[in-house]
Amino acid sequence: MFLNMTPSIINRIAILTSGSDAPGMNACIRAVVRGALYHGIEVMGIRRGYGGLIRGDIFSMTSHSVSNIIQRGGTILKSAHCPEFMTVEGRQKAYEQLMNHGIDALIVIGGNGTFEGALHFYEEFGVPIMGIPGTIDNDLFGTDYTIGYDTAVNTALKAIDRIRDTADSHERIFLIEVMGRDSGYIAVQSGIAGGAEMVVISEDPLSTQELVDTLKQGFNRSKSSSIIIVAEGETKGTAATLADQIRKQVDDKFDMRVTALGHVQRGGTPSAYDRILASRLGLGALEGLLDGTINVMVGIINNQLVYTPLREAIDRSKPIKNELLRMVNILSV
Amino acid sequence: MFLNMTPSIINRIAILTSGSDAPGMNACIRAVVRGALYHGIEVMGIRRGYGGLIRGDIFSMTSHSVSNIIQRGGTILKSAHCPEFMTVEGRQKAYEQLMNHGIDALIVIGGNGTFEGALHFYEEFGVPIMGIPGTIDNDLFGTDYTIGYDTAVNTALKAIDRIRDTADSHERIFLIEVMGRDSGYIAVQSGIAGGAEMVVISEDPLSTQELVDTLKQGFNRSKSSSIIIVAEGETKGTAATLADQIRKQVDDKFDMRVTALGHVQRGGTPSAYDRILASRLGLGALEGLLDGTINVMVGIINNQLVYTPLREAIDRSKPIKNELLRMVNILSV
Amino acid sequence: MFLNMTPSIINRIAILTSGSDAPGMNACIRAVVRGALYHGIEVMGIRRGYGGLIRGDIFSMTSHSVSNIIQRGGTILKSAHCPEFMTVEGRQKAYEQLMNHGIDALIVIGGNGTFEGALHFYEEFGVPIMGIPGTIDNDLFGTDYTIGYDTAVNTALKAIDRIRDTADSHERIFLIEVMGRDSGYIAVQSGIAGGAEMVVISEDPLSTQELVDTLKQGFNRSKSSSIIIVAEGETKGTAATLADQIRKQVDDKFDMRVTALGHVQRGGTPSAYDRILASRLGLGALEGLLDGTINVMVGIINNQLVYTPLREAIDRSKPIKNELLRMVNILSV
Amino acid sequence: MFLNMTPSIINRIAILTSGSDAPGMNACIRAVVRGALYHGIEVMGIRRGYGGLIRGDIFSMTSHSVSNIIQRGGTILKSAHCPEFMTVEGRQKAYEQLMNHGIDALIVIGGNGTFEGALHFYEEFGVPIMGIPGTIDNDLFGTDYTIGYDTAVNTALKAIDRIRDTADSHERIFLIEVMGRDSGYIAVQSGIAGGAEMVVISEDPLSTQELVDTLKQGFNRSKSSSIIIVAEGETKGTAATLADQIRKQVDDKFDMRVTALGHVQRGGTPSAYDRILASRLGLGALEGLLDGTINVMVGIINNQLVYTPLREAIDRSKPIKNELLRMVNILSV
Repeated sequence: MFLNMTPSIINRIAILTSGSDAPGMNACIRAVVRGALYHGIEVMGIRRGYGGLIRGDIFSMTSHSVSNIIQRGGTILKSAHCPEFMTVEGRQKAYEQLMNHGIDALIVIGGNGTFEGALHFYEEFGVPIMGIPGTIDNDLFGTDYTIGYDTAVNTALKAIDRIRDTADSHERIFLIEVMGRDSGYIAVQSGIAGGAEMVVISEDPLSTQELVDTLKQGFNRSKSSSIIIVAEGETKGTAATLADQIRKQVDDKFDMRVTALGHVQRGGTPSAYDRILASRLGLGALEGLLDGTINVMVGIINNQLVYTPLREAIDRSKPIKNELLRMVNILSV
Repeated sequence: MFLNMTPSIINRIAILTSGSDAPGMNACIRAVVRGALYHGIEVMGIRRGYGGLIRGDIFSMTSHSVSNIIQRGGTILKSAHCPEFMTVEGRQKAYEQLMNHGIDALIVIGGNGTFEGALHFYEEFGVPIMGIPGTIDNDLFGTDYTIGYDTAVNTALKAIDRIRDTADSHERIFLIEVMGRDSGYIAVQSGIAGGAEMVVISEDPLSTQELVDTLKQGFNRSKSSSIIIVAEGETKGTAATLADQIRKQVDDKFDMRVTALGHVQRGGTPSAYDRILASRLGLGALEGLLDGTINVMVGIINNQLVYTPLREAIDRSKPIKNELLRMVNILSV
Repeated sequence: MFLNMTPSIINRIAILTSGSDAPGMNACIRAVVRGALYHGIEVMGIRRGYGGLIRGDIFSMTSHSVSNIIQRGGTILKSAHCPEFMTVEGRQKAYEQLMNHGIDALIVIGGNGTFEGALHFYEEFGVPIMGIPGTIDNDLFGTDYTIGYDTAVNTALKAIDRIRDTADSHERIFLIEVMGRDSGYIAVQSGIAGGAEMVVISEDPLSTQELVDTLKQGFNRSKSSSIIIVAEGETKGTAATLADQIRKQVDDKFDMRVTALGHVQRGGTPSAYDRILASRLGLGALEGLLDGTINVMVGIINNQLVYTPLREAIDRSKPIKNELLRMVNILSV
Repeated sequence: MFLNMTPSIINRIAILTSGSDAPGMNACIRAVVRGALYHGIEVMGIRRGYGGLIRGDIFSMTSHSVSNIIQRGGTILKSAHCPEFMTVEGRQKAYEQLMNHGIDALIVIGGNGTFEGALHFYEEFGVPIMGIPGTIDNDLFGTDYTIGYDTAVNTALKAIDRIRDTADSHERIFLIEVMGRDSGYIAVQSGIAGGAEMVVISEDPLSTQELVDTLKQGFNRSKSSSIIIVAEGETKGTAATLADQIRKQVDDKFDMRVTALGHVQRGGTPSAYDRILASRLGLGALEGLLDGTINVMVGIINNQLVYTPLREAIDRSKPIKNELLRMVNILSV
């Protein structure tokens, strides 16, 4: 069970960001810090994720530490991947640092890998943990939206809008690769919002033949340009590979270009939605901890705060609504 | 009941936008038109709202009519307020135009006033009506979000971010007036996202004394600048009036400025969220009509399509979550 | 003369920002600091303009002090108006602070008022001064562009683009008030770029009758909406006053709205042009000082660095090109 | 000589866009059309560049044809590359179309290739030609700026700003590839404005060793992240190749990522500068033609309209200012 059986008193918490950064992480850190001060709790910041915890890169945070950061992309706490924390020895060192600094509970902002490490940490050392979903991919069970996702979709959308200017002027086909390793959320939402003719995601694979047929039908209906959104998949270059396959199946009458949006999608000023979501999750994480709710990830489901056991958040998947996939086809008529 | 007892066959529908324009209306028109074509239904566009309907300013729409508009603010169908439709004579003329053009059902995109007119029209002439909530104010019951709201909040937020640069550089207090006549949604959400010290809305009135006290406390805690978001209320100028009241109660040590964001908030490229919401509502409106659901407004509640009787959508109000108001106070610590 | 008579050796300089803030000031501070370090010179930062100088609010700056600020609006050195520096006593105190801190020369970023103070300071105490034009108004002689101007024009333009969505959808006339107290630069450039029908500036006054006639001619040519840009003039509210005058002269067939863009125009991430201009001027200011060029403002004329005596920069005016005013009329045909 | 010896009367002109599209082309088309109407001249639009001219894809333009386009990226006249116009036969057909449509002079918006074709056309058939520089690359002699360049630099800059959020959060090195085939303008300006540590362009080649040394020095000075801007050169992928070369020369302590911005740079709403430049050049092109100035490209040098013979515009190159290259090094200290 994730409700703490022995709710020890929490006087001092620590917070870190781990894994890939996402816009809104700073708004979330701010909410945790300000919320803690409001409740009379001390907050320590840990720099560079689990690696910083292991090395004791820990400092005291005040209201001033988080002023004027709500609008900034990235994370003021820095982030890094940390293989050492995947070992028992690494986690042992981390635990000693927590003890040395008198930290009673730990809030981690990140994605699947972050929570996997946190869960081990909890199971081995009993450290009260609260996870906050911070990843542009929106691929976490237990929350309708993750911090950074709305911003990333809007960033991809702005790029699509720009490319459409050229696609339209030159009557070309553009394949645009967006982020989303295991998940087609960014692809589907930016595709619908960008008026794409097709969206290619691993959850709903289209054969090259289907793509070619749809493109040909579009041109027969006198479409003069097309935009196809491709989720990047396991490795970068998915869109380029796909373009090669299409080219092999058609005569060269298609003027086809490929653009991979890349890391641009991770940064930037967070959207209003992401700042509010991050603020709610940050405050919800803190107040959950104070209520003795641990070993969970805080999320928003149907606009309500919900706490999901970390194990479930890690193991279960969140499928894309069929309604959205259906819309792509209907609206590109 | 709003489920049509005698579902007559719908072969041709018409669509209009009415009241103040909102970003995403074009994405919604596109979804209605493309959805109709997908289902083999004819679509007529009506220009300039109810006035255009009365005058017969009606034209046939094709897939091409709505290509390359998903990213545009405003409404390609134009909009206008129409006092004549508030009279029985006006609605009689409108009905004759519908008959003359062989239109079986009418989709209206707008806000409260638009739906009020539509309801009269339905009650008097039995015209099957479907309403779609299009207003930046988000003040409609029956949907968690209205088309244009997310964009307006982000537009207000960008302005707040800009003003904070100056507030911070000059160590000033800024009162920023945002839109939202009967509703503080834009104020609260842009206030949280913008890191405002206070948000003043009619739903949760603060006395001038409370404002002054909070400002003084902030400066005592060595805050060097403050941003206060004010919902415009019944008439423009709410923020300027408030500033005058504050000035009377304090010595002149506050360097205080006022900016009313004004019509800037209505326009602009719609956000990803608004384009997707508009597309879902447009398609949902059309498919609702085809299923015989009439005299309702289509909305999104907990991320599901929901149809609410127009009477309810007009009469009931949608209060702001207390959780959000509480957050403003905690996070400005 | 402004070419140095007694080129004393400069080992330590100080920098401050004064008057209203402008986007790009931070990029300029960065260029001064990095340039100084490159040349082996020490740099002191002075907070809050001349007031900070008088109070000795002075600190040592390193390369790290200016990292990650090039993209930020406002000024990290803060700014303020300082009546005390307008007195001999104030400047006496300021001079003592400079001596106490071993500062050999002073770089000031600001506008007319800033330079006026600097000139007195130079004349009375012989402090080597270098001025850098930082104001969104672009109203300084001795440079084609001032820091912040390009960003402000683009900010005004984005607002105009948004408002046009609504103007077009509702077939309305909008009067949009932009900044520019003594100068119509922002009005003229944002008006041309925004496709405005008319631009009203104090340098080229139009009678109300001329405005009304042009509006009527436009509507006779079946223009359905109009945007008029108004420079704010001596006091805010110029556009609102003008709208009232127009309303008195026409029947009520014009649906006319007014928006004053206000302080939004001062903030925001600086444009590429402003960052490059600020970097060139910052480095040029520093290297000018090291070459013994003092008592001048550095500027860019025909894309070349130029040093203009402060007296000239203050006293002479920079008229708007007639070519631009002519374009407004031709292109709104 | 480019001053027309026999200034025949011009009653009807035609305009086309050719080559790659650039933001601001629409503002330029608008200025040509509105300027022509102002001067009582007829204007024909030619769709899809020289190919459309050969096929007679020509239509009459009115003031309304260009309303509400000043803010749009791309070109409403569409563009395409046209190998057929590179042949005498193709140009013969094009000439016949001009004659059939009674067109007295031709305005072409594009880059080097566009002007090369135009020059042949003039030399063979004596068609009065006026070129307007429209390309994001800014690589044309005879003008300080080309239409689209300022927007492209700002677009690249926004992407760099986003990526810096991640670079900074993860303490990584990013190689960002920007457009600019034969010219490093975009790279140098976006590099300075983006605060890049290095800019790699073909005009000023750096050896891999120099790059590695500079990166190592930066890290020794405790820089924690670096951004390197790379001009794409002859073929895409320059940055990826460079990253591989760097990786071979260093141990794996550099966490290095590559992003190629790609076609995003071509689109988008034009900046204020590009809209004004495009308007000036469009009007200047038209009025130049009416004055009998032909066989030239219109440009802006030192903020003045200048007409340069097409031959010179094509053959001569415009080197990057050394001042800018020097600044990159100094400011990344």
